[in-house]
Amino acid sequence: MEETIEEKQHTAWIISVGNELLIGRIVNTNASWLAEQLTLLGYKVERIITVPDNEDDIAEEVGRGYTRAGIIITTGGLGPTYDDMTLSGVAKAFGLPLELNPDAVSMVKNFYSSRGLELTEDRIKMAYLPRGAKPLRNTVGAAPGSLLEINNVLIISLPGVPSEMKTIFLEEVKPILEKRVPKRAIIECGIVARKVPESGLAPYLKKLAKKYPTVYLKSHPKGHELSSPILDIRVLASSRTLQEAKELATKILSELENYVSELGGEIRERHCRSQD
Amino acid sequence: MEETIEEKQHTAWIISVGNELLIGRIVNTNASWLAEQLTLLGYKVERIITVPDNEDDIAEEVGRGYTRAGIIITTGGLGPTYDDMTLSGVAKAFGLPLELNPDAVSMVKNFYSSRGLELTEDRIKMAYLPRGAKPLRNTVGAAPGSLLEINNVLIISLPGVPSEMKTIFLEEVKPILEKRVPKRAIIECGIVARKVPESGLAPYLKKLAKKYPTVYLKSHPKGHELSSPILDIRVLASSRTLQEAKELATKILSELENYVSELGGEIRERHCRSQD
Repeated sequence: MEETIEEKQHTAWIISVGNELLIGRIVNTNASWLAEQLTLLGYKVERIITVPDNEDDIAEEVGRGYTRAGIIITTGGLGPTYDDMTLSGVAKAFGLPLELNPDAVSMVKNFYSSRGLELTEDRIKMAYLPRGAKPLRNTVGAAPGSLLEINNVLIISLPGVPSEMKTIFLEEVKPILEKRVPKRAIIECGIVARKVPESGLAPYLKKLAKKYPTVYLKSHPKGHELSSPILDIRVLASSRTLQEAKELATKILSELENYVSELGGEIRERHCRSQD
Repeated sequence: MEETIEEKQHTAWIISVGNELLIGRIVNTNASWLAEQLTLLGYKVERIITVPDNEDDIAEEVGRGYTRAGIIITTGGLGPTYDDMTLSGVAKAFGLPLELNPDAVSMVKNFYSSRGLELTEDRIKMAYLPRGAKPLRNTVGAAPGSLLEINNVLIISLPGVPSEMKTIFLEEVKPILEKRVPKRAIIECGIVARKVPESGLAPYLKKLAKKYPTVYLKSHPKGHELSSPILDIRVLASSRTLQEAKELATKILSELENYVSELGGEIRERHCRSQD
C-alpha cells in the first residue's frame, strides 16, 4: 500500500456530503460527473465517499483523504441552512478555525445586492471559510466554493446543486488541476462481443490484464449471460500523447478480438472516445 | 462519536466495488436503491463508499464498517473475471480463507447445467466464499451472494448487475434485515414553498431541527434562489406506528407552513409517502 509522492499527487478522493444521498432520495450524479472529469484530466479516483451532514464524519473522511490523495473534492453542504456544515468539517479536520473571508463576503454581498437584497446572518454564513482557504467564484449561485491547500494537498469544496458544482469546477478548479499533473492523453475504446459468455472470456481477459498492467480492462455483460450473451468490453489506456494511447488501446483491442473469434464470438462494433 | 450497541445494530454501511464507478462511466444507482430500502426498513445509512477492484481497499473499508455498523452491504465484484475480488477482500478483512462452499457450488452448477454448460474453472470461482459465509440464492444470474456473520455484524455481498442485486436483496436479504430491527414506521412528507428564498427560511428550519432532533429535515432549492425561489422541503419522521409517525410529520409540516406564510411565501402542495 506504499505510494510514491507522485502517485499521491495523482490520486483524488471525492467526498459527497448529504443525508439526502444516504436515505436514497437522490442519486449521486455529482460524484460520477466529477469522477469522469478527474479521470480525463489524468487523476486516479481512489474513493467516492458519502457522509452525513455532520461535522465529525466530514472531518474524519477529509482527514483520511489528506493522507492518501493529492486532491480532495467535497460536494454539498455549503448553503445557508443549519445543516450545511462541510466547511466546519473541513476546518475541523486540520484544527483550523472558520473565519469570515473578506473576498467571500464581497462575492456573497454582490450576489444579493445585485438582486436588491440585504446580507442577513444566514447569508453571511456562506462567507466563512477555513483559515487560509480561498473562495472560488460561483457565477450561478450564492455560495462560493473553497480551496484550501495544506502541504501540497488541495481540499476543494463545491456546492451540491449540480449546475453550481459544475460551473465552479469548470471555471475555477479545472485550470488549477490541469497545471498540477503532467498532461496525459487518455482514450477509452470498446467493443461489443456477441455469442461469448463473460465466464468464457474471463481467462483471456486475465491474461491481457497481466500483459498490460497499466491499462484498465473491463467486461460488462449486457444480454443474458448464456441464452444470448452480449459483452461490452472496455479498454482505458493513457499515455503521454493521444497517438501513443490510441496505439496501445488498438493493440489490446486487436488481441481481444482474436480471443473472441477463437471462442466463436462475433464483434459488433469498435468505438473510441478521448478528451481532445 | 460513542455509539450504543443498539445504535450500531441500526447502522448500515454500503460499499460499492468497481473501477467503472471511479472513472465515472457508471452512476451508482445501486447505492441509492439500497440506501432507500435500508432507510425504509429502519436502518440509518452512515456511509456509502466506492472502492477500486482491489483486495486491500475492499478489506480496509469492510474492516472499518465492521467496527461501526451492524450491517455492511457490498455490491459488485462477484463475477467470474480476474478483477472480481470482493469476496477475497471481505475474507482478508477478517483474516479468513476463501473456501469452496458446497451449497454455492450446487447453485452455480445448477445455473450452468440447466443451460447445458459445464463448470469451468472461472465459473467455479463464483462458489468460493469466506470461511463461515452462506451463499445467497441468485434466481436471475450465475453468481450467488454471500452472507457472513461475525460477532452479530452481517457482511452481505451482492452482485453489481442491478437486476441481480435487487432480486437477491428482496428475496434473501430483506427478510433477514426485517427480523433484526424492531419494526419502525417511516413516513416522508414534503411541501413545495414558493416566494421564500432558502436563506430566508434557514433560521426557521434551524429552530425546528432543534425542537425535533429525531426528525430529518431538509430544504432543496428548485427554482432560482432569488428571482423565483421554489423550495422543496422534506420531513422524514419515524416512530413505532405509522399513525404516530404521520402525526409527528404533520405537526412539523404545519409549523413549517406557518413560517412560510409569515415570510410571505406560498405553499404549493403537501405530499407524504410511507412504505406500507
